[in-house]
Amino acid sequence: MELSTEIKSDIKIAQEAEIKPIKDIAEQLDLLEEELEPYGHYKAKISLDLMERLKTKEDGKVILVTSINPTPAGEGKSTITVGLGQGFAKIGKKAMIAMREPSLGPTMGIKGGATGGGYSQVIPMEDINLHFTGDFHAITSANNALAALLDNHIHQGNQLQIDVRRVVWKRVVDLNDRALRHVIVGLGGPLQGVPREDGFDITVASEIMAIFCLATDIQDLKRRISKIVVAYNIKKEPVTVADLGVEGALTLLLKDALKPNLVQTLEHTPALIHGGPFANIAHGCNSVIATKMAAKLADFVITEGGFGADLGAEKFLDIKARAAGIKPEVVVIVATIRALKMHGGVPKDNLKQENLEALSNGLENLQKHIETIQAFGLPFVIAINRFVTDTKNEVQKIKTWCAEQSYPVALADVWEKGGDGGVELAQLVLETINSAENCFAPLYDVSSSIIEKVKTIATMVYGAKDVEFSSKAQKQIIEFEKFGWDNLPICMAKTQYSLSDDPTLLGRPTNFTITIREFKPSIGAGFLVALTGDVMTMPGLPKKPSALNMDVNEEGKAVGLF
Amino acid sequence: MELSTEIKSDIKIAQEAEIKPIKDIAEQLDLLEEELEPYGHYKAKISLDLMERLKTKEDGKVILVTSINPTPAGEGKSTITVGLGQGFAKIGKKAMIAMREPSLGPTMGIKGGATGGGYSQVIPMEDINLHFTGDFHAITSANNALAALLDNHIHQGNQLQIDVRRVVWKRVVDLNDRALRHVIVGLGGPLQGVPREDGFDITVASEIMAIFCLATDIQDLKRRISKIVVAYNIKKEPVTVADLGVEGALTLLLKDALKPNLVQTLEHTPALIHGGPFANIAHGCNSVIATKMAAKLADFVITEGGFGADLGAEKFLDIKARAAGIKPEVVVIVATIRALKMHGGVPKDNLKQENLEALSNGLENLQKHIETIQAFGLPFVIAINRFVTDTKNEVQKIKTWCAEQSYPVALADVWEKGGDGGVELAQLVLETINSAENCFAPLYDVSSSIIEKVKTIATMVYGAKDVEFSSKAQKQIIEFEKFGWDNLPICMAKTQYSLSDDPTLLGRPTNFTITIREFKPSIGAGFLVALTGDVMTMPGLPKKPSALNMDVNEEGKAVGLF
Repeated sequence: MELSTEIKSDIKIAQEAEIKPIKDIAEQLDLLEEELEPYGHYKAKISLDLMERLKTKEDGKVILVTSINPTPAGEGKSTITVGLGQGFAKIGKKAMIAMREPSLGPTMGIKGGATGGGYSQVIPMEDINLHFTGDFHAITSANNALAALLDNHIHQGNQLQIDVRRVVWKRVVDLNDRALRHVIVGLGGPLQGVPREDGFDITVASEIMAIFCLATDIQDLKRRISKIVVAYNIKKEPVTVADLGVEGALTLLLKDALKPNLVQTLEHTPALIHGGPFANIAHGCNSVIATKMAAKLADFVITEGGFGADLGAEKFLDIKARAAGIKPEVVVIVATIRALKMHGGVPKDNLKQENLEALSNGLENLQKHIETIQAFGLPFVIAINRFVTDTKNEVQKIKTWCAEQSYPVALADVWEKGGDGGVELAQLVLETINSAENCFAPLYDVSSSIIEKVKTIATMVYGAKDVEFSSKAQKQIIEFEKFGWDNLPICMAKTQYSLSDDPTLLGRPTNFTITIREFKPSIGAGFLVALTGDVMTMPGLPKKPSALNMDVNEEGKAVGLF
Repeated sequence: MELSTEIKSDIKIAQEAEIKPIKDIAEQLDLLEEELEPYGHYKAKISLDLMERLKTKEDGKVILVTSINPTPAGEGKSTITVGLGQGFAKIGKKAMIAMREPSLGPTMGIKGGATGGGYSQVIPMEDINLHFTGDFHAITSANNALAALLDNHIHQGNQLQIDVRRVVWKRVVDLNDRALRHVIVGLGGPLQGVPREDGFDITVASEIMAIFCLATDIQDLKRRISKIVVAYNIKKEPVTVADLGVEGALTLLLKDALKPNLVQTLEHTPALIHGGPFANIAHGCNSVIATKMAAKLADFVITEGGFGADLGAEKFLDIKARAAGIKPEVVVIVATIRALKMHGGVPKDNLKQENLEALSNGLENLQKHIETIQAFGLPFVIAINRFVTDTKNEVQKIKTWCAEQSYPVALADVWEKGGDGGVELAQLVLETINSAENCFAPLYDVSSSIIEKVKTIATMVYGAKDVEFSSKAQKQIIEFEKFGWDNLPICMAKTQYSLSDDPTLLGRPTNFTITIREFKPSIGAGFLVALTGDVMTMPGLPKKPSALNMDVNEEGKAVGLF
């Protein structure tokens, strides 16, 4: 395999693509005209009325895409998700993709797009990576309206006797802005509010984002919003949105955003891009509503979890699938030879050299994630995302390893070849759905104790030998039981780079303990976040942010975006 | 005149209205299909390519609507603007309305909608009053991205040697949030940025909003953004967006927002609703691009200024019209009998009683604004916005007063009767355009001195006998001359309630002095703000904010919005 003489940037490929009017994509899906709410010519929202119209229609099959623990080498989970959708179309199947919306913060900072890559992208990628249809802005507005209403309540007499030292609701911006991490608000004297310590998170870390992605309809959205705990009163009892009486207003601010967004891939495969919660302090998947809608509109839905299978797939299966009654048919586990070599001990700069021993060692990481998917009773397929530097011997090594253990594996070349490069994978996925046994069940019972639930995840998914709880976490468990919050699923906030809570331990670490430092109740979202270390909920910008390269050219088109 | 047995709320009238698909409205305007970018079925953005296609077409005639100084009695300037547009349609003329977008902050707080009232509204009013097409969110993002990039520059070594005590760029939210007026950011230690005093404004007070509304195209937008002064360095020299090198990225964030938004009135008259800067620290008019586009699409454009003629019309004529090369044909000055009685000394609770003497005294306020419009060399028409409590004698009194001075006056009943109630006014406006002399010129030469320009406005528009400049303002004038900023128009920030800088002096105060406390340079927008007192750039919420009444009903429709 050789490098092509010109490697085109993602934005160049995306901008040169022949894009179809979104109404043509909607026609493919047999949408009624009134169900499509266009946003420009190439994106649209789909009315939730569609779910009522198609409620007796059998659901399409859900395929979950996950990966090994991410490395700086890149795995390409989104690229495989898009490429697999295109591959399904190539073999004549009606497939649809359901993915997360990207956050503007990282776009202005450092990250590549979250819309796939090469010839497996969703378009129009500039729109999707910038404001898109305004969903995140609506979530930001609802989050910050709640903060303003809360501070106003305190300022106007504080009838609920909120302890200003125990306000837990933070404001958000959809930007990387480190200067807002720790702030003091309400300064300037008695007419300017009540001074207190505060901080801002990035929008994707808002509990409203998590709620938005777990709600099954608008009334469920309102119910969940009303349960958000915003503060504690002077008796240390929780104060909720319902106590403030503003769940109706916040729901109103979200009513249009709740409609999934329809776009297309470079090969015109329909895709719903909707919602995008953090994958550490939240569950990291696109909205339940989008996944369910895609299942009504297509025979196969390809969707992804955040980070690797230890975080993303676990949360998809234990939180999202449980809340929404979704049963996945198969899990695709994505890996690259480069990344496996990193897990096997090769530093980033040496990845171009063939290294069969490192590859062999790195396969341990993949092996652990396979066992995790098996623990959920689900069939799986391994997808090797091809890279130009992969050697023949390395490819053979993986094939042999899979053959020895009867693991289904397919090579995917969707970055370079689009859907054609995903045909082999699509066929294997289809065969696996039709032949493999599926006895899916979440890993734990929500009614078991908080400690038991955390231990189940840590031992069965991460391979930890034990879990330690800080004294703070132990006190919180007692308190949560008192408030009746113990019967909720657990959302683990752990480093994505390692199966353990130490980001430097790649491969398959053993004999380690997971420490739960603290819990964060997300009662509206309906889970308890278990924090294993410091989690960054407001990223910063690098010294040379990508914003420095961005521009609009004479024709009004985006320049320098990835 | 009697009260009808049932007075419907604005939202009830708006939701019961028969709304046409926006593509039908676009057809009325002969838009090309590719020029219309629908946002749902009832609102759309219009591509700026249209301006190129129609560049040789003769412009329609611009009609500016302004009013007496606003009072708690209500004048209904927006209602008249919409009703006059509908009235023009009734007499067979091709008219279009150009108005400001409302801010979400006041919507959640206390204010009624900014989309007209009764049977003279623009619809869909819920959408327009909530997120609309996301323009304000784009402006918020661009404003806050600049703040994040600025604080990041300081944190990453501060190559530009910015004095952290002299950062003048503030973050914004499109909410009423008093707790954000005065804050400290960058707390938490050396990894969390550099601590400094800061504050948030409401989005409509952002200089980016003013720039957005004055830019003539996307390249002009970028040019203006690059000139924004964000801070001063340790040598007290201005630091601009161009110095940070991020004007391209900020323009990119605004490229879609810059396209005007097409909606319709209750009677399907097309309206462009676009941009909405503050009328005190900015110029208070909808975007130049929308006004110019409306003039390409219709024979008559009805547009409004902010507040009364002393602020809104003056700024429309001296700032917007000058920057954009717009020449208005006639100015409509709106008044209500109720409001004139307040200017004549009647307290709000007694407005229902007939009071001819107070009315007579209140007419002095109207008289001053007439003189102002005459000073600009423009013809005018007085529009009396009818109210159910107006008595026959009061109406007669106004008619007689106008007749005595040969002032053209029309009664408008557009709130209750829609376009039919605006026919008389539309006819009078048309006659005035066709017959009256128009020798429009801005009031002052931009190349005259700052002091001279301020004095011209204060004496000729407000009727002040003199202007005093604080010692701070005097120092600033010297500094601005040094920076070459003195050749810019002046944007007065003064109370809207009085012709003077004392909000309690209604009617036509005389023998008063205006005090300029301070200047605020808006170099990107291209004007110098002259502050006559404290200007609130971040409103607060009332004890019982209107958010408490808002909800979404079972069908997903807005409830409790006005």
